[in-house]
Amino acid sequence: MITTDPPTRNGVDTATLFATLDAVKAAPEAARFQFRAHNQWLSGTHNRSTITDFFGVGEERTHQRTFTFDADHPAVLVGRDQGPTPVEFVLHALAACLTAGLANIAAARKVKLTEVRSTVSGDIDLNGILGLNPEVRNGYQQITVRFTIKGDASAEKLRDLLEQSRARSAVYDVITNQVPVTIEVDTP
Amino acid sequence: MITTDPPTRNGVDTATLFATLDAVKAAPEAARFQFRAHNQWLSGTHNRSTITDFFGVGEERTHQRTFTFDADHPAVLVGRDQGPTPVEFVLHALAACLTAGLANIAAARKVKLTEVRSTVSGDIDLNGILGLNPEVRNGYQQITVRFTIKGDASAEKLRDLLEQSRARSAVYDVITNQVPVTIEVDTP
Repeated sequence: MITTDPPTRNGVDTATLFATLDAVKAAPEAARFQFRAHNQWLSGTHNRSTITDFFGVGEERTHQRTFTFDADHPAVLVGRDQGPTPVEFVLHALAACLTAGLANIAAARKVKLTEVRSTVSGDIDLNGILGLNPEVRNGYQQITVRFTIKGDASAEKLRDLLEQSRARSAVYDVITNQVPVTIEVDTP
Repeated sequence: MITTDPPTRNGVDTATLFATLDAVKAAPEAARFQFRAHNQWLSGTHNRSTITDFFGVGEERTHQRTFTFDADHPAVLVGRDQGPTPVEFVLHALAACLTAGLANIAAARKVKLTEVRSTVSGDIDLNGILGLNPEVRNGYQQITVRFTIKGDASAEKLRDLLEQSRARSAVYDVITNQVPVTIEVDTP
């Protein structure tokens, strides 16, 4: 009996994953993407983003659905709690990025995952954004990610998968390194 | 006729906002918060975060509702497009943070806003995360935010509000500066 590598592992289509890698190797400019969020203020600290269009692999694209997300402050921070705070979305983004990478890397290395859970915690002193203490930064002072990972590999190998995901994570890079941000304003 | 400052402006309860500032001035430790996201892997690059609990003003708290958000990769990045990519949530977080701050600062400065919209664009070269070019970073190379702001103040004053929001934005700080991230893993 001839056994072939299954086409998907961990829900990852590994054949397509490797084909995509080969395609980008042959045409590196295909990997230039631009992602976008469109935001509209609603009331107070409550606002809503729409995520639908992006550019990649040489052309304008859209997600299969339009995604909308509300953000707000909780009552204790003088909001109406119509959504998470903006800083909580950053924690979700970090968990999601590390987890997606982990699943891809496990599939490529032929490890079957059975459970991946994580909690991301960010410590922030609001004396910064409230302008009450110039010594305190506005953003998180530190972020901690705690993963539980189960699969058909040794603990050491599972840890290696996570380390490789960290080493190739876009959101981890954004948070731990600096990204230049330009802000333009049109005031008609 | 005696006119008093209205209790809310731009949907911001300014009286509570100033009372909160006074309370934190009197007890700075109340401003120590910890935000959290709990993430569960579903399949492939598809995973889901739950945001509900946080710590602040000296005690454990919960949002009025539990918020859940899916993240995934689009088909062109070998996912099933069950949610935005993790990096798109970062753009939403930045727009939401700058906009919430703008509304608060405008209310404090007695400016009535009528419209605030923004588009956040992030340029990323996936040769980084794909491991195909060690010269290319994993995260965004640059992020651009374009705001349209309308209200009952001069263009200059509206720009000043946005500049002050930027100067006090937690997410802007996280993205443009560095936050230390610790990753722990439990592999039972």
